[in-house]
Amino acid sequence: MTLNVYLSGEIHTDWREQITTGAQGLDIAFGAPVTDHAASDDCGVAILGAEDKKFWHDRLGAQVNAIRTRKGIEDADVVVVRFGDKYKQWNAAFDAGMAAALGKSLIILQPEEHDHALKEVDAAALAVARTPQQVVQILEYVLTGALPQ
Amino acid sequence: MTLNVYLSGEIHTDWREQITTGAQGLDIAFGAPVTDHAASDDCGVAILGAEDKKFWHDRLGAQVNAIRTRKGIEDADVVVVRFGDKYKQWNAAFDAGMAAALGKSLIILQPEEHDHALKEVDAAALAVARTPQQVVQILEYVLTGALPQ
Amino acid sequence: MTLNVYLSGEIHTDWREQITTGAQGLDIAFGAPVTDHAASDDCGVAILGAEDKKFWHDRLGAQVNAIRTRKGIEDADVVVVRFGDKYKQWNAAFDAGMAAALGKSLIILQPEEHDHALKEVDAAALAVARTPQQVVQILEYVLTGALPQ
Amino acid sequence: MTLNVYLSGEIHTDWREQITTGAQGLDIAFGAPVTDHAASDDCGVAILGAEDKKFWHDRLGAQVNAIRTRKGIEDADVVVVRFGDKYKQWNAAFDAGMAAALGKSLIILQPEEHDHALKEVDAAALAVARTPQQVVQILEYVLTGALPQ
Amino acid sequence: MTLNVYLSGEIHTDWREQITTGAQGLDIAFGAPVTDHAASDDCGVAILGAEDKKFWHDRLGAQVNAIRTRKGIEDADVVVVRFGDKYKQWNAAFDAGMAAALGKSLIILQPEEHDHALKEVDAAALAVARTPQQVVQILEYVLTGALPQ
Amino acid sequence: MTLNVYLSGEIHTDWREQITTGAQGLDIAFGAPVTDHAASDDCGVAILGAEDKKFWHDRLGAQVNAIRTRKGIEDADVVVVRFGDKYKQWNAAFDAGMAAALGKSLIILQPEEHDHALKEVDAAALAVARTPQQVVQILEYVLTGALPQ
Amino acid sequence: MTLNVYLSGEIHTDWREQITTGAQGLDIAFGAPVTDHAASDDCGVAILGAEDKKFWHDRLGAQVNAIRTRKGIEDADVVVVRFGDKYKQWNAAFDAGMAAALGKSLIILQPEEHDHALKEVDAAALAVARTPQQVVQILEYVLTGALPQ
Amino acid sequence: MTLNVYLSGEIHTDWREQITTGAQGLDIAFGAPVTDHAASDDCGVAILGAEDKKFWHDRLGAQVNAIRTRKGIEDADVVVVRFGDKYKQWNAAFDAGMAAALGKSLIILQPEEHDHALKEVDAAALAVARTPQQVVQILEYVLTGALPQ
Repeated sequence: MTLNVYLSGEIHTDWREQITTGAQGLDIAFGAPVTDHAASDDCGVAILGAEDKKFWHDRLGAQVNAIRTRKGIEDADVVVVRFGDKYKQWNAAFDAGMAAALGKSLIILQPEEHDHALKEVDAAALAVARTPQQVVQILEYVLTGALPQ
Repeated sequence: MTLNVYLSGEIHTDWREQITTGAQGLDIAFGAPVTDHAASDDCGVAILGAEDKKFWHDRLGAQVNAIRTRKGIEDADVVVVRFGDKYKQWNAAFDAGMAAALGKSLIILQPEEHDHALKEVDAAALAVARTPQQVVQILEYVLTGALPQ
Repeated sequence: MTLNVYLSGEIHTDWREQITTGAQGLDIAFGAPVTDHAASDDCGVAILGAEDKKFWHDRLGAQVNAIRTRKGIEDADVVVVRFGDKYKQWNAAFDAGMAAALGKSLIILQPEEHDHALKEVDAAALAVARTPQQVVQILEYVLTGALPQ
Repeated sequence: MTLNVYLSGEIHTDWREQITTGAQGLDIAFGAPVTDHAASDDCGVAILGAEDKKFWHDRLGAQVNAIRTRKGIEDADVVVVRFGDKYKQWNAAFDAGMAAALGKSLIILQPEEHDHALKEVDAAALAVARTPQQVVQILEYVLTGALPQ
Repeated sequence: MTLNVYLSGEIHTDWREQITTGAQGLDIAFGAPVTDHAASDDCGVAILGAEDKKFWHDRLGAQVNAIRTRKGIEDADVVVVRFGDKYKQWNAAFDAGMAAALGKSLIILQPEEHDHALKEVDAAALAVARTPQQVVQILEYVLTGALPQ
Repeated sequence: MTLNVYLSGEIHTDWREQITTGAQGLDIAFGAPVTDHAASDDCGVAILGAEDKKFWHDRLGAQVNAIRTRKGIEDADVVVVRFGDKYKQWNAAFDAGMAAALGKSLIILQPEEHDHALKEVDAAALAVARTPQQVVQILEYVLTGALPQ
Repeated sequence: MTLNVYLSGEIHTDWREQITTGAQGLDIAFGAPVTDHAASDDCGVAILGAEDKKFWHDRLGAQVNAIRTRKGIEDADVVVVRFGDKYKQWNAAFDAGMAAALGKSLIILQPEEHDHALKEVDAAALAVARTPQQVVQILEYVLTGALPQ
Repeated sequence: MTLNVYLSGEIHTDWREQITTGAQGLDIAFGAPVTDHAASDDCGVAILGAEDKKFWHDRLGAQVNAIRTRKGIEDADVVVVRFGDKYKQWNAAFDAGMAAALGKSLIILQPEEHDHALKEVDAAALAVARTPQQVVQILEYVLTGALPQ
């Protein structure tokens, strides 16, 4: 069993590396959005041409990124969505909503301080983790049945 | 043609009333979450019994509310999601993600200041409105073909 | 909003009547299996002719009942599954599995003593209730936003 | 043709080994839940932290296990569900209901004494077997057309 | 509960009338193909213009009839397919295949002499009836729980 | 049986009126896009505000119109797509592609001169009609079984 | 592009060999039912035990065969259904109906004499071939663009 | 991540070669219709036999081509549709409609002069490109996150 896992959400800390490193040796294919913030913001106009209005500048980029996001979520068995300390992160919650509607297994990775604000998102998840290590342990258990020592 | 419209998101201003009042006379069936904030937060424990941990207190409530939300979104032709000035509003973005994945026509109602943070959500929408009146005008046009005077 | 609610499971106590009576005045269309145990067991052979082997006697009946069950679950927004004190009740758990796979909102009604044995079923549910009154209160809240006094 | 077969249900006897051993040489990819009873019961709290209430202890575990179960059933062409002599086994019947709703080919493996109690489950199955050897023979026939000698 | 029942297959005897008459008073909406054999054969060319080749003459008609058939089957909860004594009746078996793939409850109405030839079709059905009266009794039981006296 | 019929495509002649008038007395609910060309082109900017670039002017309008089109096609049993003499009419072919992918019964209404250019579209249709009267006759036959006199 | 092709229907002539031999070198994965008539008829009772009534003898076998058929059709891109000179062949038409409902590309292989009787089935097909060679030529063209010399 | 990309539309210029050459080294599986215009027009009659009427000549060919098109679009993650300067190109718009309804990521490649005529098609797309190089840049960014230098 190969598990397809999509790592959505916050792109400012190294949580994805912690998970992919921790999961080395497990039969997992990881996916993720483009995590270079500047590239992600400007990909639309960089390729398709400049826009005067920021609204359409953003639209071009968000739509190009959606090609990758949509593929990543649709191919996934498990979608991990990380909420960090900063920013609105509405795209993370949007991804979680898509994943839930598509019947994906959802794992939310978030600090406790967001528990109340995330209660609707958490209620659609199969696990609410606090650390990347817990996500690794869940994936290891799901694939091998082994619990953390 | 009856249009089913679900009004998701912010529950602290009267935007829903502005839309339903403005749309009087149109063939629309409106749906919405429970907008009594206290009831919405406590419905789970009020019915199913108290929980010591706030996490489970929230979970019980969020899951009971999900019965209504899921029904509202699945029955809808159009899902309007309102983002306001305050709070994290991740449940609004989550609803938008569900609506998008289910192929619903999505209208986002938000102030310009959120444009960049909402760019992924907006990119999945068929309209980004700034005022409830614009939402009413869209619904009127969709149903009757009439443009605002 | 009319809510379609299917009442699955145990047929030996009056829990369905408690719910439908308690929910009077709410905009709910209730569905249920045939609750006459003898008719339910024998409907196949009574209509299609006797079978020597009990296995096929049961098969004929179960398939005729499935016409009603399948319709009831597929039409439902909410599926309530009641587990009682007696019998194996595998058909109840089977209905719950169907409802979950079809994305229905699932409410489990069961005594605490079954909590551990039902943990996988409960984990797919949006509420685990102990009494029919709690189910009524959930349905009332979902439809009207009113909490029990 | 590779056949994906998920082996659901009873985890106290060696029926899975009998099937996988008997099916050696056939082009089958087998899946199964975690069959270490203690690990399966405690995986949630072992990874995500202890819960005071047994109900939530069970919920955490059941949800983590659901990541594996859901993947296993959704990937399967054939779901074999084994009902043994002991325990309530509602999770087995729940898996059968999910498999049926998802249009999977369902094989039930059960002793005759459960025929009446399982009649609704059996009625959704393409075969009701009494021994693991019969399951192996069905899988061999499905893949190669060869009948038992 | 209104039951939508589509009556597919043989159009040379009055079996449909027997069922609709027998089911008077039950909450059933019946559908059926056009049962005027000549109209059914010629509808395509009568409306769209003559064809030299019988093959295309038939194609035009079959496609126009498919508009009605498809609607009838897709709207149905129950599809009854009648196989008579004469003709190839491949369209009846084709309708049964569509109904099965769409998850409709299938009732086959056929004389015993066709049992072996129809075994794959029957295996997908929830009931195999021999007389229109049995179909009426099934529908009555499904809707009311009442068995034949 | 009520038939939902969506009339897509060319908006410069009175073909829709010919069909709806000709079909009077039949149990049909007709849908259509907004056929006021100017309103259809400008609805986006009229409601949501002016755009400097024609590309975004068009986008705003096309997306608002898509709310109506999507609803109309998804609700339809039959989608009639009319190709006229003028314009590119790519939106008509786009609607036909959506209708085909959604499994709708498709009727194409077009002059013979377009036969070769429309061969892929026609190949997905259940009828290719030349006149609105033929469409009416098809709808009448589908609903009543009556052929034109 | 690998094409998955399921060869359904008549099992008494060598048409499958003609197609698979003729298609050597093409990137095609072929599937088919068990074509050993005796094994196909008796597989149920040979594995699961004898039945007194022929009806249930047939049912056991048809359901075991359905495991293979369902997998074959669901995995297929193209379903070829062959109708021969003899027998009722309702299972062939049933497979065609399933394939059509699942949106598979359908090719019917039949002698002209059955044209009228098969008109509804043919109308759902993308090609009606008379010889296995034509089927090979279609598959070759679909994969390579090469027409027969 | 392997990306499946289907290149639909205009077959008279070398835009497909520009894209596949430009994308060398990227993990992409490209699909396309048969681009030999004569073969595409005549494949039906070349294999299945001549037709007197051009309408049916075209139908045979269009349906054989649909086997390839349908497979290509259904397997795709991304569908690129090219509109050129000449011809009606309704099949291109039809493919775009199918791709949109199936939830594929759609990229439209077209000259600016068609902007207004393609506004409904463009509104369903995640990118509107002017050159094959832009399409390559989008695909590279989607797969690697790298922007053009």
